[in-house]
Amino acid sequence: MTVPRIGVTLGDPGGVGPEIVLKAFGSGVLLPPASYILFGDSRIIAEEADALGLPFKAGPWREGERGKAGIFLSETVSPAADRALRRPDARNGRASFRSFEAAVAAARGGRLEAVVTGPVSKTSWKMAGLPWRGHTEYLESFYPGAIMSYWSDKLLVALFSHHLPLSKALGKVRRAALLDFFRGLSAAAGRVEGGPREFLVPGLNPHAGENGLLGSEEELEIGPAVEAARSEGIAISGPHPPDTVFRRALGRLDILVAALYHDQGLIPFKLEAFESGVNATLGLPFARTSPDHGTAFDIAGRGKADPGSMVAAIRLAGRFTASAS
Amino acid sequence: MTVPRIGVTLGDPGGVGPEIVLKAFGSGVLLPPASYILFGDSRIIAEEADALGLPFKAGPWREGERGKAGIFLSETVSPAADRALRRPDARNGRASFRSFEAAVAAARGGRLEAVVTGPVSKTSWKMAGLPWRGHTEYLESFYPGAIMSYWSDKLLVALFSHHLPLSKALGKVRRAALLDFFRGLSAAAGRVEGGPREFLVPGLNPHAGENGLLGSEEELEIGPAVEAARSEGIAISGPHPPDTVFRRALGRLDILVAALYHDQGLIPFKLEAFESGVNATLGLPFARTSPDHGTAFDIAGRGKADPGSMVAAIRLAGRFTASAS
Repeated sequence: MTVPRIGVTLGDPGGVGPEIVLKAFGSGVLLPPASYILFGDSRIIAEEADALGLPFKAGPWREGERGKAGIFLSETVSPAADRALRRPDARNGRASFRSFEAAVAAARGGRLEAVVTGPVSKTSWKMAGLPWRGHTEYLESFYPGAIMSYWSDKLLVALFSHHLPLSKALGKVRRAALLDFFRGLSAAAGRVEGGPREFLVPGLNPHAGENGLLGSEEELEIGPAVEAARSEGIAISGPHPPDTVFRRALGRLDILVAALYHDQGLIPFKLEAFESGVNATLGLPFARTSPDHGTAFDIAGRGKADPGSMVAAIRLAGRFTASAS
Repeated sequence: MTVPRIGVTLGDPGGVGPEIVLKAFGSGVLLPPASYILFGDSRIIAEEADALGLPFKAGPWREGERGKAGIFLSETVSPAADRALRRPDARNGRASFRSFEAAVAAARGGRLEAVVTGPVSKTSWKMAGLPWRGHTEYLESFYPGAIMSYWSDKLLVALFSHHLPLSKALGKVRRAALLDFFRGLSAAAGRVEGGPREFLVPGLNPHAGENGLLGSEEELEIGPAVEAARSEGIAISGPHPPDTVFRRALGRLDILVAALYHDQGLIPFKLEAFESGVNATLGLPFARTSPDHGTAFDIAGRGKADPGSMVAAIRLAGRFTASAS
């Protein structure tokens, strides 16, 4: 049996990323069998392992090699003299970007089946002069059809659009683009072990437009796109009233809600799965997951960070790559 | 001590309204001391009381009189020969409208301090040829500044706009109208015993616009309106990121979230307080509350309806009128 190769980036060296990665691998929690390749600075790993009292060893990764279960290291960062902790920092921004860039390059080259990303600081990236707001924007520069999705044991949500002003997000709600979104979702979810098999689409307007009384997008754009997707065999329905559709999906891990704009999906998701969820980017030729929380600068370097969301992100990457093993 | 006068309408005779009203008054639950005046058809009340096995007696209401605790009847409907149950019906639409109209007229005339409305069917109203979609639209014809608000023990939410297409709701987000909304909210909440004393305003755009990167309404309209309200002494803050602000308010009965459009407020409210919440119309010269559920035609006339939300609506009306007693 060949196990999948899953890259794991440490995230911003000044945040909780290195700590939760080490805790995820060093605390005896059960992770799916895989080659785990850590992308980051070996000095930070050693420092963090020492501070946490976790014995940690990773052999160097040979990029050509595949399928050996274990933990390996891909050294990508020229070590800085010392680490700025608990605050945004240009060097940390560069470091977290470089390890992410290296992992993505390996995945794009077919040498990784999945990438799990530790939390980066948007401010650190900005201070480093990077033109991308974060991981997703960088991925979108290669894969414009990338879909942001959010996974938890309470709700599964994907976003048709994410970092757009609401007025622009409304303008994007068009039949052809929606159909592409539904196809992308269905294909990606179908590759996830135990993933969602049914998709619910909310309307855009109150009460899903109430037969045109409260808006026309449901009849002109959303309804026809849902019908077209159904006729292709996708188990999808809608438009449903936005204020009750999430209730229907609550606790149902076989159902994903395909939200039409950022807050339509994230208001209910963050209410139900605050900081315990996992973020997955769909529509890439490899899996990408990450914990649904930030660098948590306030508690970094204190040994207090909860690795739960990172563990969940690694497990979800395992489910995405189960068919590759 | 003079007790407040609280009108209670039976709602659609074919739905669960009469049943939950009778159960609220006849099941021994503790209600605030008041003159409760039932608006509806005495034959339906008698029929329902008989079916439920609840002994129920209400003397006729003398409109001039005030302040006697007890249950009274204001007969407003010429009895129909028989009642259409469990479906929309034009006669039921007329009946539920007439009792509501009579209660509102009494409240507008200063003869009631509050009106609690049983659920009506929008379809029945339409079949009856009524030009209003429901209770709120009728009230808005007199009081254009009326504010829809939603109360539960999990979340308190008010809506800046409600039954509007989302694109039109966005266009309403303007400084002057927002300031009026905040003033109306603060004044109305201040009159409620134990009501919210702090108001959180979400942004309109993802991450509340992220300093203008993801939309301009926060900087141009919402922020200035919040500041203006603060300078008038209102305990209000924002714009906050929409996807985390509801989490901050969860379980805090001293905080109300002033949502900017229908689904921004009702997606989280219905997720947390499905069919157990209470709806209150603010900005009227009297209190108006109602259960946050519909006619439930499917279970009407079977004795199975849960009066919990109606009881909560009556209690909230009591809190609104406590200062009048």
